[in-house]
Amino acid sequence: MSYPRVALLGLGLIASSMFWAMKRAGMDSHVTGYARSQATRDTARRLGLCHEVCDSVAEAVRDADLVVLAVPVGAMGELAEAMAPHLKPGCTVTDVGSVKQAVIDAVRPHLPEGVEFVPAHPMAGTEHSGPDAGFASLYDNRWCLIVPEGASEQATARLEAYWQALGANTERMEVEHHDLVCAVVSHIPHLIAYTMVGVADDLRRVSDQEVIKFSAAGFRDFTRIAASDPTMWRDVFLTNKPATLEILGRFTEELFALQRAIRTGDGQLLFDYFTRTREIRRGILQAGQDTDAPDFGRAAVRK
Amino acid sequence: MSYPRVALLGLGLIASSMFWAMKRAGMDSHVTGYARSQATRDTARRLGLCHEVCDSVAEAVRDADLVVLAVPVGAMGELAEAMAPHLKPGCTVTDVGSVKQAVIDAVRPHLPEGVEFVPAHPMAGTEHSGPDAGFASLYDNRWCLIVPEGASEQATARLEAYWQALGANTERMEVEHHDLVCAVVSHIPHLIAYTMVGVADDLRRVSDQEVIKFSAAGFRDFTRIAASDPTMWRDVFLTNKPATLEILGRFTEELFALQRAIRTGDGQLLFDYFTRTREIRRGILQAGQDTDAPDFGRAAVRK
Repeated sequence: MSYPRVALLGLGLIASSMFWAMKRAGMDSHVTGYARSQATRDTARRLGLCHEVCDSVAEAVRDADLVVLAVPVGAMGELAEAMAPHLKPGCTVTDVGSVKQAVIDAVRPHLPEGVEFVPAHPMAGTEHSGPDAGFASLYDNRWCLIVPEGASEQATARLEAYWQALGANTERMEVEHHDLVCAVVSHIPHLIAYTMVGVADDLRRVSDQEVIKFSAAGFRDFTRIAASDPTMWRDVFLTNKPATLEILGRFTEELFALQRAIRTGDGQLLFDYFTRTREIRRGILQAGQDTDAPDFGRAAVRK
Repeated sequence: MSYPRVALLGLGLIASSMFWAMKRAGMDSHVTGYARSQATRDTARRLGLCHEVCDSVAEAVRDADLVVLAVPVGAMGELAEAMAPHLKPGCTVTDVGSVKQAVIDAVRPHLPEGVEFVPAHPMAGTEHSGPDAGFASLYDNRWCLIVPEGASEQATARLEAYWQALGANTERMEVEHHDLVCAVVSHIPHLIAYTMVGVADDLRRVSDQEVIKFSAAGFRDFTRIAASDPTMWRDVFLTNKPATLEILGRFTEELFALQRAIRTGDGQLLFDYFTRTREIRRGILQAGQDTDAPDFGRAAVRK
C-alpha cells in the first residue's frame, strides 16, 4: 500500500520524521527531498535524510507517486505553483499543514487535471524544529487527520494506509470542523502559552532570572510549546483566523468570569471550576495520550 | 542541624514528601503527624507515614521543635488558633503555603511570645494530591523560598538547613515580592490552564472525546496543572488577590495585542513575539529546571 516514489518538500521536523518512520516500517519507496535553503539541504545530505536531496522542486517531484508539502502553511501556495508543471499525471499530492481550509485554497488552484489532492494533518510535533529534529517514533499512537475534500476514495484510503504504516492513527474530518478542533486543542493553547511567557519576560518587577529559577511551579509547562517554530505558528494564526478568533473570544469570556470570582471572593465558583477540569485530564490518560507519571516523569532533572 | 521533634499538620503531597525526604536524609527526628480527616489519618498509618499519627492537633504539636503547617492557605488561620495553646516555648512554626502575606496575617496573631514563625514555600508539587502521592525526591533541585519577616537569623538559618537536607535549594525573599513572583510563575499559569481546559470542555461544537483524542497537539500540556488540587488553588486565588489580578491584567493586555495582530494580519508582530519566547525556554533548560527531551520524553506513551 505504499508509494514507489515519494517526494518530501520541506525538510523540517515533520518530513525528516516521516523519512525515518518510512525506513523503520521497511518501506521500499525511493524518497527524494527538497528544501529551499542550501544549509538545510546540506544538513539533510549529511544526515542521510532521503535517498536523494535535490536542488530544485522540479527534480524532486519528477516521477513521484506521492508529493508531500511539508512547509509552513503560508509557503504552501508558492510551492504548489512551482511544482505543478512537473508533477507526474495521476500522482497524489498531500500536505502536513495545521490549517486545512487555507491550504486547500492556496494549493488546489495550481494543481493540473488528474492529480489527486488529499490534505492531511499529522497531529504530532515537538518543541524542536529543523532537519535534525526528526525521529522515527514521532507519529506512534498519534492522530493524522485526513480531509478528503473531493479526493477519490482510492487515493484517500491509500494515504491513510501510508500514515498508519508510519505509526499514526487516522481519522477523516470535514475541513471546517478540522480547523475548529485544531483551534481548541492546539492553536489557542499555543497562543496562550506564548502570551504567558511573553508577559513573564516583559515584567519589570520580576526578573527573567527569577522566572527561570522558579519555573517548576507551573510556568515551565507552558514554555515547551512556546518554544515551537515561530514561522509555522505565525502562519497558523494568519490562516486560521475565524476559528482562532472564535475560541479566543470564548477563552477571554471564561477568564473574565474567573477573574470576577477572584475579585468578589466567590470560592465556590472557583472550586467547582477547578474540580470539573480534572475529569478531562483523566480522559486523556485513559486514552493513552499522555504519561501519568507525576510531573511528566521529569522529577529527576539535575543541574 | 535538624530538629529532634517535628510535627507535620496536614498530611497531603507536601507533608508526606517531607517525611520520606527526611527518612532518605537519615534524619533522626521523631515525626508526629495530624490530619483533620479520619480517612487521611488511616491512610497515613497504613503507609507508615510519620512515626506517630495523632488524633488531635494538641497531641501532635506537644514537645515539637518544628511545627509545619501543611494545609491549604485558607485553613491556616484556624489550624494556628487550634495549635497555639499547645506549642512548646521556643519552638519554630513554619508553613508551606503558596501565598505568604495572607498566611502571615492569618497565623501570626495566634502565636504566643517566644515562638518563632518562619514562613516558607517549597516550590514543588505534582498534579497528584493526598497522603499517598508523596515521594522522597519531590524537593530535589527545587527551590524553597524563605520569607523571614522578623524571625531571628538563627531560626531562619536552621530552617534553611533543614530544607536543604530535604534536597531543596533555598532563597530568602521579601513577602510582597514573593507573592508577585508566584503569581507570575505559578498562580496565573494555573488559572490559564484551568480556563483553557474549561473552555474545551464547554464547547458544544467540539466534543470532549475529540479534545481528548487530539490533545497531543498542545492542549495536554495544560491539563497536567489543571488537574491540581481544587481546594489548594481556590485558596491561592482568594488569598493572593492583588498580585493575581495585576498579572492577569497584564496577561489579557498582551493577549489582546496578539488577537489584534491576528485580526489585522500583522505577521511580523506575531513572528517577533514567538521568537522572543524561545529564549526563556533555553534559560530554563540551562538552569536545570526542566528536561530537554523532546515532548518531555513522553513520546513513547502507548494505549
